[in-house]
Amino acid sequence: MKKSNGIVCQSGGPTSVINSSLYGVITEAKKHPEIERIYGSKNGIAGIINEDFIDLGLLDAENLELLKQTPSAILGSVRHCLSNDFADDEYQKILTFLKKYNIRYIYYIGGNDSMDTVAKLTNFLKKADYECCVLGVPKTIDNDLDITDHTPGYGSAIKYIASSINEIKEDTSCYKKGRVTIVEIMGRDAGWLTAASKLADLNGNGPDLIYLPETSFNLEKFLQDVTKIYACQNKVLVCLSEGIKDKNGGYVQNQQVQKDKFNHVQLGGVANYLTSIVKEKLGLPVRAIELNLLQRCASHISSLSDIKEAINCGKFAVKKSLQGHTGKMVIMKRKNAEKYLISYHLCNIEKIANKVKYFPAEWIVNDNDISNQFIDYALPLMDKEYKSKWKNGILLYTKLYK
Amino acid sequence: MKKSNGIVCQSGGPTSVINSSLYGVITEAKKHPEIERIYGSKNGIAGIINEDFIDLGLLDAENLELLKQTPSAILGSVRHCLSNDFADDEYQKILTFLKKYNIRYIYYIGGNDSMDTVAKLTNFLKKADYECCVLGVPKTIDNDLDITDHTPGYGSAIKYIASSINEIKEDTSCYKKGRVTIVEIMGRDAGWLTAASKLADLNGNGPDLIYLPETSFNLEKFLQDVTKIYACQNKVLVCLSEGIKDKNGGYVQNQQVQKDKFNHVQLGGVANYLTSIVKEKLGLPVRAIELNLLQRCASHISSLSDIKEAINCGKFAVKKSLQGHTGKMVIMKRKNAEKYLISYHLCNIEKIANKVKYFPAEWIVNDNDISNQFIDYALPLMDKEYKSKWKNGILLYTKLYK
Repeated sequence: MKKSNGIVCQSGGPTSVINSSLYGVITEAKKHPEIERIYGSKNGIAGIINEDFIDLGLLDAENLELLKQTPSAILGSVRHCLSNDFADDEYQKILTFLKKYNIRYIYYIGGNDSMDTVAKLTNFLKKADYECCVLGVPKTIDNDLDITDHTPGYGSAIKYIASSINEIKEDTSCYKKGRVTIVEIMGRDAGWLTAASKLADLNGNGPDLIYLPETSFNLEKFLQDVTKIYACQNKVLVCLSEGIKDKNGGYVQNQQVQKDKFNHVQLGGVANYLTSIVKEKLGLPVRAIELNLLQRCASHISSLSDIKEAINCGKFAVKKSLQGHTGKMVIMKRKNAEKYLISYHLCNIEKIANKVKYFPAEWIVNDNDISNQFIDYALPLMDKEYKSKWKNGILLYTKLYK
Repeated sequence: MKKSNGIVCQSGGPTSVINSSLYGVITEAKKHPEIERIYGSKNGIAGIINEDFIDLGLLDAENLELLKQTPSAILGSVRHCLSNDFADDEYQKILTFLKKYNIRYIYYIGGNDSMDTVAKLTNFLKKADYECCVLGVPKTIDNDLDITDHTPGYGSAIKYIASSINEIKEDTSCYKKGRVTIVEIMGRDAGWLTAASKLADLNGNGPDLIYLPETSFNLEKFLQDVTKIYACQNKVLVCLSEGIKDKNGGYVQNQQVQKDKFNHVQLGGVANYLTSIVKEKLGLPVRAIELNLLQRCASHISSLSDIKEAINCGKFAVKKSLQGHTGKMVIMKRKNAEKYLISYHLCNIEKIANKVKYFPAEWIVNDNDISNQFIDYALPLMDKEYKSKWKNGILLYTKLYK
């Protein structure tokens, strides 16, 4: 048996369960003597380029277990786009590193952009004739990765969102005094997260109006809808994506837009913007609420189903890497419609990298509501609660090498 | 035995456990045959004035139990200030109502302003020679009621805040790229809630800088501190109260201020304001996070200790009302410093109404940090978790007369 080592990277935006996938990779790798050591690269691909890594075999049992309730990315994350030109210095550094530590397995936990890195790494290593399996493990709260039924991270994010809307609706209902409440939820291009506000309907607390980036936002129609609902019930709860767009495809909020390295527009503040419009044009009392970054890192309310699937994705990647698969990502398929059951598969990375899966048009009702088909789809993803370990009233997290 | 009826009111801002106090009142009242019926007034004192109420005896066992995990105020709340003049029409309506339904016990669950209502009601009913016991049951996330060790609602709010800061710190630590994060927490005049951000230190995730309304905020010093910490660790986590004030006692944010009926200034947005200053003056990447109203209604993360105490306060009020006490509020005393143990007492309402208990100056360190004495004080209040009932991945709430 040929012995060599593996390395895990975490990349892109934090989620509540990216460390559960890490848990899956570590525990599975430890079962297979072919993988002598399992390393953790610090800050994604940057750790491989800069030789900055740790030996994950040194994690004690308690800290390994706590990975399942530790949010964010314990190894550190990065937003770094590898060059299209394999002559770039960074590729040589990567190759030198992999050879130096006899690394033949790379597990890359991330979203769309990270899968771009998986694709480039795979192609470069093939060209360099260095035998190494590179597999992607899906992760993103946005649920916008193509082909897979859904992505680890999404289930916990929507559990937080559904719970928050449930609480906000209850809170804002207690006064006779009327008010419009506008809640802004993450999502630049895809409305998966905002649609989850509809899940509060499971406790009768769904929003009155829901707007996703997939449909064009009509300000006049919005003001009419708010006026109509306010007249009936004295209160309006609106949930919308940060990335809602007008009929010309421009972001609703007229603001200076900044772009990140992957050419994504950095947004924020559309709820505040619409709040000022409602105040000015309709003269109604109105409040903006931004769910902010807690929607991606509130691990105290992680979905048990999400944690289990994140672990399974990590484990599956390790098993498949030992069969020689490379340049692929783990995907999940729903076995049948009757009972929620997930099976794990691999998919060629080219089919996934840099692509966006939009919220299905047929699940959007009248441009301002979400159908029950979505509830059927999403409910199993946020079902059940993980029994977290608390100490002194607060959640404990993994400490690397305490 | 003289039989008569009781009525409960909920008033002021929502909390996660105001319905637990209601649970305590209902379950205790049911034990005593002197109280034939226990009514719930809709929207606080407004329900008594307008004869808008329900019979709480009709709540079934399941919905009664769910009160413990239902946030906000199930009976509806109100911000209504009774007149100082007992000749006011409203008082006559109140008296008519109480006589009509033979109500001799009023339980008023609320904060500072609600205790003003308790005081006025007591004095009016004495003057009108109508025998009726009016007792206040404390409630406020702000923890600013005088004399009582703390208030029900505070423990759950700080559990949410500590948990959120714990998660935010973990999230913002995962990139190498530096950033200043400014978190705005509720608190117009008292810093009790913002101080709770320090509790994230129990998991090593406390903020770098904490500012309360009790000390004057020096913008120059703040910018120096941010610069210094950023230079060391590339990241700064700042937590501050919405009501921080400059050396002249003015709110830090120069904005048009609105006042509510109790003459309180309505604030919001100081984190956004300081974000723009940090960007402009220091040129650092910076982000504002407003914890918003979830900090008062996130019942999915209620403190078990808080729920128990809220129930006990309700029960104690009923017991004491049957002994003829009136014009008093339930207070909690800590029995000794060794082991956390609470005893319940009554206190004359005049000592409490319209007064504010500020955060102790001796627990503030260097104007930008909180001492461990506060952690010793606050930790038992947020300790332990309530085992909530979930269904379909979401928390169920009490439905009145489903």
